[in-house]
Amino acid sequence: MPSVFSQIVEGKLPAYRVAETEEYLAFLDINPLTRGHTLAIPKREVDYIIDLEEETYIGLWLFAREVAKAIHAAIPCERVAFAVVGLEVPHAHIHLVPIRSMADLNFQNPRIPLTPEEFQATAAAIQAKLRELHPQKFGA
Amino acid sequence: MPSVFSQIVEGKLPAYRVAETEEYLAFLDINPLTRGHTLAIPKREVDYIIDLEEETYIGLWLFAREVAKAIHAAIPCERVAFAVVGLEVPHAHIHLVPIRSMADLNFQNPRIPLTPEEFQATAAAIQAKLRELHPQKFGA
Repeated sequence: MPSVFSQIVEGKLPAYRVAETEEYLAFLDINPLTRGHTLAIPKREVDYIIDLEEETYIGLWLFAREVAKAIHAAIPCERVAFAVVGLEVPHAHIHLVPIRSMADLNFQNPRIPLTPEEFQATAAAIQAKLRELHPQKFGA
Repeated sequence: MPSVFSQIVEGKLPAYRVAETEEYLAFLDINPLTRGHTLAIPKREVDYIIDLEEETYIGLWLFAREVAKAIHAAIPCERVAFAVVGLEVPHAHIHLVPIRSMADLNFQNPRIPLTPEEFQATAAAIQAKLRELHPQKFGA
């Protein structure tokens, strides 16, 4: 059975998509720690991030950085934190979490409720910054 | 004033070193969340990880992965989590934290007290695995 993330990649499950390339996808975490909390994944399903092929591993971190820069530009925050926990969905993913304090990066915090309109506006704001930062890659 | 991490790089402050290359250093976090909690840093001081030069950024994540694999082999755990928070020491660093549950990756948890002997034994166990996994790079 494909992971929920593979089902998102295939369009069988919905997601607020933020960025996509041939190999990688970024979409908003549906249970966000903060507004702008995004997941970056390789489309090909591999469970443990340290098991990715080197090229895919490097590409994923570069993709995550591009998305992180756009999140930082779009969402008021001190930093965009990176986290890979690996005990949730068995499909490698990097959490990109805009934070104002250390306490914001606590996966046991209550998640913030956002309306569909808020999710859409957040994804659109990050996308706009991505297009600004990388017009050739993420331009319309 | 150089960061505490630059002072560790220069040998002016002590640390339980785990791995070192020309550009990168890994050492045990002195206030560990779990036994084996390690920090991987670029030797050259840059505050925000997304501002590293691309080559250094890629090299840091590859170095962190080599260290993470050795931690996983040396320390009983479910996963080695990766985290970059960026609000503590203003010198980019990746936390590599062996975890058994999501709750272990909470930077507000009380830190575990280890004796100098326990720190030394932990560093030695990770080093031994690194030498095993990468004899040419980290061999004696």
